[in-house]
Amino acid sequence: MKTYKEMTREELLALKSELEAAYEDAKGKGLKLDMSRGKPSPAQLDLAAGFLDCLTSADCMKAENGFDTRNYGVLEGIPEARKLMADIMSTTPESVIVCGNASLNIMYDTVARSFTHGVMGETPWCKLDKVKFLCPAPGYDRHFRITEHFGVEMITVPMTDNGPDMDMVEQYVNNDAAVKGIWCVPMYSNPLGTSYSDETVKRFAALKPAAKDFRIFWDNAYCIHHLYAEADKQDKILNILDECAKAGNPDMVYEFASTSKVTFAGGGISAVASSQANLDWIKKSMTVQTIGYDKVNQLRHVRFFKDINGVNAHMMKHADSMRPKFLAVLDVLEKELGETGIGRWTNPKGGYFISFWTLPGCAKAVVAKCKEAGVVLTGAGATYPYGIDPEDSNIRIAPSFPSPEEMAQATDLFVLCVKLVTVEKLLAE
Amino acid sequence: MKTYKEMTREELLALKSELEAAYEDAKGKGLKLDMSRGKPSPAQLDLAAGFLDCLTSADCMKAENGFDTRNYGVLEGIPEARKLMADIMSTTPESVIVCGNASLNIMYDTVARSFTHGVMGETPWCKLDKVKFLCPAPGYDRHFRITEHFGVEMITVPMTDNGPDMDMVEQYVNNDAAVKGIWCVPMYSNPLGTSYSDETVKRFAALKPAAKDFRIFWDNAYCIHHLYAEADKQDKILNILDECAKAGNPDMVYEFASTSKVTFAGGGISAVASSQANLDWIKKSMTVQTIGYDKVNQLRHVRFFKDINGVNAHMMKHADSMRPKFLAVLDVLEKELGETGIGRWTNPKGGYFISFWTLPGCAKAVVAKCKEAGVVLTGAGATYPYGIDPEDSNIRIAPSFPSPEEMAQATDLFVLCVKLVTVEKLLAE
Repeated sequence: MKTYKEMTREELLALKSELEAAYEDAKGKGLKLDMSRGKPSPAQLDLAAGFLDCLTSADCMKAENGFDTRNYGVLEGIPEARKLMADIMSTTPESVIVCGNASLNIMYDTVARSFTHGVMGETPWCKLDKVKFLCPAPGYDRHFRITEHFGVEMITVPMTDNGPDMDMVEQYVNNDAAVKGIWCVPMYSNPLGTSYSDETVKRFAALKPAAKDFRIFWDNAYCIHHLYAEADKQDKILNILDECAKAGNPDMVYEFASTSKVTFAGGGISAVASSQANLDWIKKSMTVQTIGYDKVNQLRHVRFFKDINGVNAHMMKHADSMRPKFLAVLDVLEKELGETGIGRWTNPKGGYFISFWTLPGCAKAVVAKCKEAGVVLTGAGATYPYGIDPEDSNIRIAPSFPSPEEMAQATDLFVLCVKLVTVEKLLAE
Repeated sequence: MKTYKEMTREELLALKSELEAAYEDAKGKGLKLDMSRGKPSPAQLDLAAGFLDCLTSADCMKAENGFDTRNYGVLEGIPEARKLMADIMSTTPESVIVCGNASLNIMYDTVARSFTHGVMGETPWCKLDKVKFLCPAPGYDRHFRITEHFGVEMITVPMTDNGPDMDMVEQYVNNDAAVKGIWCVPMYSNPLGTSYSDETVKRFAALKPAAKDFRIFWDNAYCIHHLYAEADKQDKILNILDECAKAGNPDMVYEFASTSKVTFAGGGISAVASSQANLDWIKKSMTVQTIGYDKVNQLRHVRFFKDINGVNAHMMKHADSMRPKFLAVLDVLEKELGETGIGRWTNPKGGYFISFWTLPGCAKAVVAKCKEAGVVLTGAGATYPYGIDPEDSNIRIAPSFPSPEEMAQATDLFVLCVKLVTVEKLLAE
């Protein structure tokens, strides 16, 4: 089979008519599917149904430190919830503060606090002329929106198969004191599914920042979100807190995680892990901000899971629910585009996304065409700072919410749109 | 009976010996009571035990708009929770955003956002040389801590029986563009139990702020926290949002409330009510900060209370629990200090506190003496900006947590300490 680029103009024109007819046909089907956000499906939420039954009026509401979870206090979270979140992040309970239902909120607050109060005694960022963040891309749009909201200059760092381009990271961090942070999703990254290699993590830990208040924002959102049960099909990454401590940079990182995609996206708990010095600094503001987060929900989590083994067992149920959807997408992509040369995509072992690259200049048109026919994708460019993909090529596919059958249908339409847009593009060249 | 000031030196010396003996005796009792914070008692928390049973895996988890509360989204809160919180604040659901478990957190975020992003397009406060807040005092220490944390200059405004001294409020707000806000607890105020008169509310609404971005922080924390069931023993205040709108100042106020002292202090929901323009501005940041607050807990609240009638009925159970404690304190105060002329106190119809004034210069010593004998009170001065009571006179008594018997015991010690400190003071003069 010829790739599209090998086709003659006549062949492309014939293909175009064929694809246009198929597209009109598809539009007539009245699809209404959403592959835009990393949103758990109703079936995944049902997996945690028992979560609603594990804390009743018959149960003791005291935390293991004797504290009544129903009352005020315990800013850092109840000990058993700190332990659970620490185990999820492979760190110690003392390194962890458990917060409300969204780790995004902790990240926002961390940036906001750095602007108003600085980082461990350094000048508040709002008093600086320029604050820069490194943004490995494609990356998580909501990270980029936080820094954009605060007027931070965002510098795109290309992603490699091992994580961000570390030459570039070192170059910036070690030389430019205006660089105050970097957004990282180190495991099963959003949207690539990349897990940082040991060398990458070690190079992060060994950074010699020009700015004392440079921090790595290590959003370990998918650290337990494997798609496969087999150990050799699960990624593992080094522990950044440990590596930073070993490298003499104990205060250089904030790690974040949540149970939003473990129990309920609308009712989980979140946590930040960091050095004692960072936590002490965070608590200076946090103790003014709140008397304590929702400890009843913290207790509910611990009662439901018991411990990290309970969490891991639960995650395998998620994997069983997610895997067929990923495979449905990959199957259609391979079958329909495998020999066309007009797209490439990731085959992740975990996380929530498949990342797809069109030929340059096609992504926006593909997303628009999909939308016109009833399939909503994440906006093209969203995975880049300021929403601008310089190549107009990357598209994030979120297979979690629809059923496997719907995912296959949606992907059928997607590949059709990729083909049609690419043919139009090639004909216009 | 003579007042203390009418006593001769000899009489005072005799009284002193007597009181010292009683104090030594009291210390021997090994009391361990906490009257320091407005913390619900275990019995009050038990009132909401059914709150833990009203949402199980057998229940529909959809909000009335069809949205699955377990999943991401619905930034403003589910419609029925907005309605419930609106009814609590006597306003409309469209004016309300329902947030996490602490209204304090919303207030902090509101101040923080004003510093980093300004208020409705005005200059961010972090770019200003000076930001001032008016602080009616005695007031809520945690309010003052927020503004202190942000380096705001706090100006004490005396409280009258009708609310803050409005002459002074008008003078500052209408003439000084650096005055950006005022902290108010308009009903059963912390710690006085004062409810603002209609005239006070109307004068607030009619302010002509020199600063466009001046806002009233209307913390209606105790709006449904009556101590008595009889209508004539319940305070009522005018609706500030309505009054501001009528006076042509629709955007001048943020109102806050929560269910922290309704369901669980550690697991309630909170809300902010304001004009559409303010809410739109708030949401510009909030949509970057979070995808949505804990909607499962919002639904749990609605299922538990059904509606505002359910809330009000529940609050009467709280009143039945709280009233005997207030009466126990008031009874001891009246009996022991009523004719001494060495203290005065409030007799509030609602809220969480009794406020007590010693003779000038005695409050700190009284609090210290109580602590030495095992009764913890809120730190003297805490009810004033920067923790400094210029008269060293106001003490906040929080009767909620201990039992009525314990409250009587604690108050016995308290009056003993007041007497002893006052006698020492008078003798030293």
